[in-house]
Amino acid sequence: MNILRRYTMHAEGSVLVEFGHTKVLCTASVEERVPSFLKGTGKGWVTAEYGMLPRATNTRGAREAAAGKQSGRTQEIQRLIGRSLRAVTDLALLGERQITIDCDVLQADGGTRCASITGAMVALADAIAFLRAKGNLAHDPLRDFVAAVSVGMVGGHPLLDLDYSEDSACGTDMNVVMTGSGDFVEVQGTAEGEPFTREEMTRLLDLATHGISQLVAAQRSALAGGTA
Amino acid sequence: MNILRRYTMHAEGSVLVEFGHTKVLCTASVEERVPSFLKGTGKGWVTAEYGMLPRATNTRGAREAAAGKQSGRTQEIQRLIGRSLRAVTDLALLGERQITIDCDVLQADGGTRCASITGAMVALADAIAFLRAKGNLAHDPLRDFVAAVSVGMVGGHPLLDLDYSEDSACGTDMNVVMTGSGDFVEVQGTAEGEPFTREEMTRLLDLATHGISQLVAAQRSALAGGTA
Amino acid sequence: MNILRRYTMHAEGSVLVEFGHTKVLCTASVEERVPSFLKGTGKGWVTAEYGMLPRATNTRGAREAAAGKQSGRTQEIQRLIGRSLRAVTDLALLGERQITIDCDVLQADGGTRCASITGAMVALADAIAFLRAKGNLAHDPLRDFVAAVSVGMVGGHPLLDLDYSEDSACGTDMNVVMTGSGDFVEVQGTAEGEPFTREEMTRLLDLATHGISQLVAAQRSALAGGTA
Amino acid sequence: MNILRRYTMHAEGSVLVEFGHTKVLCTASVEERVPSFLKGTGKGWVTAEYGMLPRATNTRGAREAAAGKQSGRTQEIQRLIGRSLRAVTDLALLGERQITIDCDVLQADGGTRCASITGAMVALADAIAFLRAKGNLAHDPLRDFVAAVSVGMVGGHPLLDLDYSEDSACGTDMNVVMTGSGDFVEVQGTAEGEPFTREEMTRLLDLATHGISQLVAAQRSALAGGTA
Amino acid sequence: MNILRRYTMHAEGSVLVEFGHTKVLCTASVEERVPSFLKGTGKGWVTAEYGMLPRATNTRGAREAAAGKQSGRTQEIQRLIGRSLRAVTDLALLGERQITIDCDVLQADGGTRCASITGAMVALADAIAFLRAKGNLAHDPLRDFVAAVSVGMVGGHPLLDLDYSEDSACGTDMNVVMTGSGDFVEVQGTAEGEPFTREEMTRLLDLATHGISQLVAAQRSALAGGTA
Amino acid sequence: MNILRRYTMHAEGSVLVEFGHTKVLCTASVEERVPSFLKGTGKGWVTAEYGMLPRATNTRGAREAAAGKQSGRTQEIQRLIGRSLRAVTDLALLGERQITIDCDVLQADGGTRCASITGAMVALADAIAFLRAKGNLAHDPLRDFVAAVSVGMVGGHPLLDLDYSEDSACGTDMNVVMTGSGDFVEVQGTAEGEPFTREEMTRLLDLATHGISQLVAAQRSALAGGTA
Repeated sequence: MNILRRYTMHAEGSVLVEFGHTKVLCTASVEERVPSFLKGTGKGWVTAEYGMLPRATNTRGAREAAAGKQSGRTQEIQRLIGRSLRAVTDLALLGERQITIDCDVLQADGGTRCASITGAMVALADAIAFLRAKGNLAHDPLRDFVAAVSVGMVGGHPLLDLDYSEDSACGTDMNVVMTGSGDFVEVQGTAEGEPFTREEMTRLLDLATHGISQLVAAQRSALAGGTA
Repeated sequence: MNILRRYTMHAEGSVLVEFGHTKVLCTASVEERVPSFLKGTGKGWVTAEYGMLPRATNTRGAREAAAGKQSGRTQEIQRLIGRSLRAVTDLALLGERQITIDCDVLQADGGTRCASITGAMVALADAIAFLRAKGNLAHDPLRDFVAAVSVGMVGGHPLLDLDYSEDSACGTDMNVVMTGSGDFVEVQGTAEGEPFTREEMTRLLDLATHGISQLVAAQRSALAGGTA
Repeated sequence: MNILRRYTMHAEGSVLVEFGHTKVLCTASVEERVPSFLKGTGKGWVTAEYGMLPRATNTRGAREAAAGKQSGRTQEIQRLIGRSLRAVTDLALLGERQITIDCDVLQADGGTRCASITGAMVALADAIAFLRAKGNLAHDPLRDFVAAVSVGMVGGHPLLDLDYSEDSACGTDMNVVMTGSGDFVEVQGTAEGEPFTREEMTRLLDLATHGISQLVAAQRSALAGGTA
Repeated sequence: MNILRRYTMHAEGSVLVEFGHTKVLCTASVEERVPSFLKGTGKGWVTAEYGMLPRATNTRGAREAAAGKQSGRTQEIQRLIGRSLRAVTDLALLGERQITIDCDVLQADGGTRCASITGAMVALADAIAFLRAKGNLAHDPLRDFVAAVSVGMVGGHPLLDLDYSEDSACGTDMNVVMTGSGDFVEVQGTAEGEPFTREEMTRLLDLATHGISQLVAAQRSALAGGTA
Repeated sequence: MNILRRYTMHAEGSVLVEFGHTKVLCTASVEERVPSFLKGTGKGWVTAEYGMLPRATNTRGAREAAAGKQSGRTQEIQRLIGRSLRAVTDLALLGERQITIDCDVLQADGGTRCASITGAMVALADAIAFLRAKGNLAHDPLRDFVAAVSVGMVGGHPLLDLDYSEDSACGTDMNVVMTGSGDFVEVQGTAEGEPFTREEMTRLLDLATHGISQLVAAQRSALAGGTA
Repeated sequence: MNILRRYTMHAEGSVLVEFGHTKVLCTASVEERVPSFLKGTGKGWVTAEYGMLPRATNTRGAREAAAGKQSGRTQEIQRLIGRSLRAVTDLALLGERQITIDCDVLQADGGTRCASITGAMVALADAIAFLRAKGNLAHDPLRDFVAAVSVGMVGGHPLLDLDYSEDSACGTDMNVVMTGSGDFVEVQGTAEGEPFTREEMTRLLDLATHGISQLVAAQRSALAGGTA
């Protein structure tokens, strides 16, 4: 697992996150405007967009810009990333500005949504540090860290998917988004194969909690590596 | 809670489900063809589409057909309905045919996705009974029932949202899709407000399990009311 | 023929109209804004949108929202409904507000455009009664009733298609929209088969006039059944 | 009124029709294929598309190709043109081929749909003559002529709109499509202003019948002017 | 080569340009507004749109409005026309207004983009003369003429493609846009076949320069033929 | 200038090209199918798609997939890349397969189209080496190298834009695509400001020829660095 900050030069936060062979570029862009439903409220907004380069995967996928629309999967993922980041951001402290996190998958080998959330958190922190360094934010709007892991049942055993190598054999796939304090932001468990029991659920949540604590440690360490 | 079968005349299954003020019309359509990725495999497919009439809600929403695309929310919901139904269907026993469940919200007062899944299950059962009555299916491809509830934390207390009246005050919203046997098909918990603790998670899952058993009883009772 | 008012709870007017097996839900939504070409003129607007649930018909049709556009037929019908309603509405008396009538076909067995117009008139009347009850309209902007029938030549004989059962055998199909006073708002006659003679035209118009008077009587009776 | 054949060189039929200041270019294209619903039936198809150059009118209109869709009006007109031509064509005699008539308005001054139908008929006749000259058609599939006029009430008087100069003052606008034998193919009367009485309807139909006979004479005369 | 002014009546400039069998209608429309990036700058804008009637060519092409989007080729051509015209227009002298040139190909036989630019220049000049005649422009914003030719290598010999008859045999195709003074505005040379040498480039540019001078002479002559 | 091969793992060719601050990822994907117009001809196809990450630039641009279409600029660039590569590829020797080059700009600081072509050439060479190593290609279909430079007039002086730092001050911008042998594949010169003289043209072409030879040397050197 590797979190590389300042990967590109223009964005206020720019993070390349590598989990196994998966590589996602997360950039944070600050804009001094908010969506219309927030105008005049004094509150800010954090949102995300997600994309995958056509040959990030083993077989070339159609370019969504050429196809003329984003797939349902893309929209689902980008809404999840946005909600996760907002869960740890005090939007009133952010003030009337928007931070957009773009998560673009350069190379995919499973787990791109979890890698995106984990990297996006660091890009967001860098963008906020940028605003604070400029004197534009009196208080830090970040209340906590947030990271995401994928856990699943493989051959009857719960597995923490930190290296994303077992995805295809998964009976159940559960994405868990948690804060640095160990509380839940999102839980999305799906069983297209065999439904899973309550006891399996308990073991999967234990494993996710453990994995998140490792990821948050990696985020803290990356951010300790220098100012943005 | 009310499940009314044979609501419209053309569809192989047609169910009006009413939960509180929410009314969803679920129709099941059988087609003797499958998506291209299943051609020649001998397997069938169950899929769903979801829509909301423009004035189903308190404020008129734009018609998606006029807007020219389905929102991300619509796509997310219809994919969830489809996955839930497939989780209890043996697609090989279904044979190379597709059943499409259309869930159209006539009136909305919260909980439309849970009502849709619960009603869609009954429409699917009726469509399969129709196929069996015609002698087209040697074995019943339905392995179990499936239903969905919404549970949440309201004012610090877990709440089973069977009557959908408390939605807006919710700190956490969790949709749980379970089988008649009490196993999990989907768990989708979101905390846009305060993240929720592990102990709250446990209480919410208990409550959901309890609610699902009531809904499955209602499905059984509706289906016992006569042949399709 | 059945006209059922207050079918759903949110809309200012909500009418389920049943003609034979055809069922159309017509809702009227009041908005305190007008299209840009009317801003500042003091005049209001009445418009309509039309849709058909995918399995309203015998064979499932593609969902227009999924297809990404409304068909030419849909647009033609919704423009016809809007023009018909405006023909009996004094837009200056309505004031700068818009009433949108959504006509959604729950079940189709022919004649959906005529049923839509006839039901939309009642939903519009209820929405206007709602505005008047709130004291927002000094004068009633409705100048007359409006209804629509389909007439046609079947096997050389003119037929009034009140029960919509003979549609497919029709040589000529003529939709006639008339006011309660017996004047014409729209006449749309089409002969894809044999062109029709002037004498046939005369007999079809006689029949339409007769049918409209029955429909307007049904509208009056439904509206006499209670305040909205 | 002027009908000019062989206006462009590539199309099998190419007619510039001028009515007053309105100029429409109607081209007929023969293709040896039919829409999928006709494959293997031995029947052919006649269809039409309609467009208006952006500056055909007094104020520049948005280019529909740039806007990304055809307006409801455009679709309504092109469907009307297609139906009118099919009403006088024996599709079985045409054989499995399609003739597409493109009606493009170079300059508009009212009455473009009537001019389009009247010109399209001549382009269609030329395309059929082309097929017959090549020996591809044993029998002439054209059963009759077809033309269209607009009639209306202006200041209480019925008016035949052959020179298209009075359009804007019209209380009622009625488009009438008739055959050379004097039968009706389409009648589309609309009263956005005052509804019109039965007696006015009778006078408008009389006037339309008279106008059509003049247009069909002009079509015959143009076609007599030489082989295609 | 033929340049016919005042071809249609509504546009401020309207030119039919015929080069060989190619016929393009170029209309200039003046609007008293500018794109948002120019608001408040005092500068105007000149832009172009391009289209081809479906049967302008030997084989009927799909109507772009029906297809729902403009092809890449269409967009490339219309951007080229706009840039070429702006190169000889002083946008500050034009003032905050926009002139849109629509180039619609009625009949195509090669060289439509060059014919479009050459005709558009004359339509623009007429629109500016119209503005000056009305007293809306103190100074002439046109600094020079602009025209376009296509040159290419055919069988090893450079060829000036004034009559557009040799297009298909071309090894290299070069479009050259030049001013009346003989300077370059655009050079677009493409070799899908054999790459071309520097010496061939020199000969092609010589030939283009010669051709442009003939076209500019024709433009001058057409404009000398009378006021718009 | 830096050309880094094997940047991502899935594609048959994967090159990160860095010119100044501009970074473009070029991946080559081999597919054993061709566009329909080539089926059965024995010939292959080389095509390209181009995209820019939203925050590749100083100000965040809208994501084209979210906007629902590719801009005219994007389409123009990707067609240019494809033509340039095909100019040096013997499509008959390639056989009936397609190679798609995706050029995605990770960071932009001018000159992205030239960097894309120069990097795409190397990715294409690697994909062809991959096919040859697998024994799928008897003969090398690459006939030559191809690279692209941007040259322009800055303050009256011709400038070779190898480091892309002077873009904005450019009076003329000329993109030149040449082969390793020094012949021209594409010349695209545009003067939105002052038109440029024939003598300036000569000096710009000299400079471009010089720059291309440096780029081709860099391509050769990168490819000499090891097998793909």
